[in-house]
Amino acid sequence: MTEHDLIKLLTRRLPGNDRVVLGAGDDCAETAILPGSRTLLLKTDAIVEGVHFEPDAPPEKIGHKALARCLSDLAAMGGRPECALVTLGLPAVPDPVKIQRIYDGLNALAERYEVAVVGGETTRTPRSLLLSVAVLGYAPGDGGVRRSGACVGDALFVTGSLGGSLAGRHLDFEPRVAEALWLTERFRPHAMIDISDGLARDLTRLASASGVGALIDADFIPVSRPARERARRRTAAKPPLTAALTDGEDYELLFALKREDAVTLKDHWNRRFPATPLSLIGRIEAAEGLRLKRNAGVSAIGELDGYDHFS
Amino acid sequence: MTEHDLIKLLTRRLPGNDRVVLGAGDDCAETAILPGSRTLLLKTDAIVEGVHFEPDAPPEKIGHKALARCLSDLAAMGGRPECALVTLGLPAVPDPVKIQRIYDGLNALAERYEVAVVGGETTRTPRSLLLSVAVLGYAPGDGGVRRSGACVGDALFVTGSLGGSLAGRHLDFEPRVAEALWLTERFRPHAMIDISDGLARDLTRLASASGVGALIDADFIPVSRPARERARRRTAAKPPLTAALTDGEDYELLFALKREDAVTLKDHWNRRFPATPLSLIGRIEAAEGLRLKRNAGVSAIGELDGYDHFS
Repeated sequence: MTEHDLIKLLTRRLPGNDRVVLGAGDDCAETAILPGSRTLLLKTDAIVEGVHFEPDAPPEKIGHKALARCLSDLAAMGGRPECALVTLGLPAVPDPVKIQRIYDGLNALAERYEVAVVGGETTRTPRSLLLSVAVLGYAPGDGGVRRSGACVGDALFVTGSLGGSLAGRHLDFEPRVAEALWLTERFRPHAMIDISDGLARDLTRLASASGVGALIDADFIPVSRPARERARRRTAAKPPLTAALTDGEDYELLFALKREDAVTLKDHWNRRFPATPLSLIGRIEAAEGLRLKRNAGVSAIGELDGYDHFS
Repeated sequence: MTEHDLIKLLTRRLPGNDRVVLGAGDDCAETAILPGSRTLLLKTDAIVEGVHFEPDAPPEKIGHKALARCLSDLAAMGGRPECALVTLGLPAVPDPVKIQRIYDGLNALAERYEVAVVGGETTRTPRSLLLSVAVLGYAPGDGGVRRSGACVGDALFVTGSLGGSLAGRHLDFEPRVAEALWLTERFRPHAMIDISDGLARDLTRLASASGVGALIDADFIPVSRPARERARRRTAAKPPLTAALTDGEDYELLFALKREDAVTLKDHWNRRFPATPLSLIGRIEAAEGLRLKRNAGVSAIGELDGYDHFS
């Protein structure tokens, strides 16, 4: 059973109520619990020692990563984070210095985005440290940017560079909160997702949620330096393009935008975020599935090339 | 280092913002993120296999317990739960039937209180199953009932019966949501907490948050049947009163109420909640600390008699 199947199974029949704007299945949930007000975005996520970070990871980065993953999901809806709750699970004998350092990393990120950390729990775990975070935020005025709104002809953009994140970036990436807020306010993408399981898999998610397909151009996919370096050093490593398509934990934004806005966006973006690359990698097409254009021609790529937490 | 010290360390310097009404340290956090509206209550919590439930616990009860603990904390502020997010951490090979049963238990409880389950994540854990839940709810019109409002002379009440919860009740207790909503609306307690770490410890928390002390009467403390039975069967077991004072995981409400309202409350309560016992167990006093009145006289009881997750 893949993670995808499992989530589908679990979310098929969750209880709802009439305030739910968007339930499980997107980057965040959206609820209109206060009538007449902006809707709220909610997200929860957990990271576990030995799975999402190694036991010797710098504690500040563990705290940073736990919150950053949630903020990345909020960004993927165009949301503004507001406050966070933390549950820290600890093996029997907690090390106060390590714990304080975990919180230092989390708090520093929270302060950067004016996110209040309003509490949380400590709990015991049998062996591995775990950190669970829940974040509450505001949706954009016209609602969260979903995965499902992509239209045929839309331009496909991705921020940053992709692949090789496990070499280090997965522990200290900066969630694209500022970029997403700016983007959503000025250019309102039709659909957006953050890339946590690899471009191939997350683009497939966005496209199938929208009932469309996509064509991406190998020459325009921004391959990260770590992905290139790894391929150069180790013959057994993935080719750089494969790494960019299938490595997990990039936490970059992938979005579909009205084609007519593409050039203006690129122009404004480069001035506003000179340190954050933005790449036009392809377009939305009517035919379902994901296709890759290379010198040799166009070929289909399967969704199973992405990263599966259970495989 | 005790759990208490650890939490104090962690919550000393959390980032805030000007919408935070009440940060870490009470049963829930409270935030006024939507101006002019009712404030929101937030709570997150996690349970882990081998710590909060045994590997052979019925999966429905695992799901029930994870959500029920959060609802109990919301109840302790007089809040109305609104929606929940779930993170399920699973060892490498998930068993779909077991997972569905966990969600069945959680969903059934959610439906009973009209709590929408708006999503969540699955994640991998090295060995033990873990279930983390975040709940969002409405505070009462005049704000959440805190631990810190108890006044000298207040009557102290506790719901249900105490001790011996680990014999089974900890997995299927009903959170006192309905009772707390009714109580807060009609009698507005000065201070309230849910008993998760034993009456002695949680009453000490309430009293010290309020800057007061308390006297409780041994004859009036409602001792549960499991606590009595265990003491009868096993000579090494705690005496029943000790169990009622110090066993963890009761999830009953403990509250301080204006003395003049005590009789009227008891009267109305018995008619409204005939199946939920309510006991007047003592009173708030000016002198700090917790005192127990028995036939032999009054003696101080230390806060360390309660249940510590790390001891």
